[in-house]
Amino acid sequence: MLKTIELKTTRRIEFVDITAQVKQAVKQAGIENGICLVFVPHTTAGVTINENADISVQKDINNCLSALAPHPGKYLHREGNADAHIKATLTGSSLTLIIEKSQVVLGQWQAVYFCEYDGPRSRKAHIKTLRNPG
Amino acid sequence: MLKTIELKTTRRIEFVDITAQVKQAVKQAGIENGICLVFVPHTTAGVTINENADISVQKDINNCLSALAPHPGKYLHREGNADAHIKATLTGSSLTLIIEKSQVVLGQWQAVYFCEYDGPRSRKAHIKTLRNPG
Amino acid sequence: MLKTIELKTTRRIEFVDITAQVKQAVKQAGIENGICLVFVPHTTAGVTINENADISVQKDINNCLSALAPHPGKYLHREGNADAHIKATLTGSSLTLIIEKSQVVLGQWQAVYFCEYDGPRSRKAHIKTLRNPG
Repeated sequence: MLKTIELKTTRRIEFVDITAQVKQAVKQAGIENGICLVFVPHTTAGVTINENADISVQKDINNCLSALAPHPGKYLHREGNADAHIKATLTGSSLTLIIEKSQVVLGQWQAVYFCEYDGPRSRKAHIKTLRNPG
Repeated sequence: MLKTIELKTTRRIEFVDITAQVKQAVKQAGIENGICLVFVPHTTAGVTINENADISVQKDINNCLSALAPHPGKYLHREGNADAHIKATLTGSSLTLIIEKSQVVLGQWQAVYFCEYDGPRSRKAHIKTLRNPG
Repeated sequence: MLKTIELKTTRRIEFVDITAQVKQAVKQAGIENGICLVFVPHTTAGVTINENADISVQKDINNCLSALAPHPGKYLHREGNADAHIKATLTGSSLTLIIEKSQVVLGQWQAVYFCEYDGPRSRKAHIKTLRNPG
């Protein structure tokens, strides 16, 4: 009921669609009714839901985040990735999804994205499913 | 235990207070102790918790979000609503509430808002309750 | 299974590490497998996960948030804390954690922070644990 997926990101900033892995984890857990938590155990990455059709949307989101927290930029943190930490807090480290009739409930245009802000790196995301006790 | 509410927004950018509907869904589910998930199945809308008293707060939040992601603005996404997608990711698509003694736990000044960023439209929000198995 | 912690913040803007209290609440609940919800019942404070090592990261996050929503600044809300409301929505009021083998699942560099945006004040955070019924 806890599944960890491994990701290899290929760019410094990149959204990776993990919707299929989330759906597979729910299917494997065999849960008809409940919730599913997606949790990113990193401080320079996040998780979000946004449009699954036009990849320009991700670029617009990341351009906006980088206008707010540029890289390089003037920061106190000396590791060169302060912008990534800021973006992680703005995006969030976890999100919760509904499972109904054995399916993850998502809108027609929604996908779940792992948000890489300091890649390329090897990354993980945890997917936890919880059955509704009724 | 999954309730879907329907909303008709009336402006392009608008916060709609859905606290009463969330409380009603929890009451209908008859759950004494557990959690309640509010999920927005759209990519140009979100859900947040903020002040329930002075409507100026919502306007300040939206003015700030629109300063960051103006409309119109220079975006790659060609549908004219890239700002709304950006705001959706910054706000988030879901939030989780505590149910204790059959009540939704909220602070004195807190309300749950559906955040419309690309209206006016017909919209939905899902409210899922989960009982604590103890 | 609902624990409320009390905090006294000492500055207007401050991140308070509450990871130890969250872990203690999970231990006290005696839950081996489930989830843990951290909920902040205030509209000028939030909760986030970020780096536990270099305190500069928190300062960079707050400097960035304050560049976006300065204090003082031009706002409609007349109580002098509109910036804090904006930051609360950008950060979020709740987050959800995984409990596995009686432990809160966090990455090596992750801590849970109560985010004070309008202190110093007496504040609360609710920690709710939910057992996985299996």
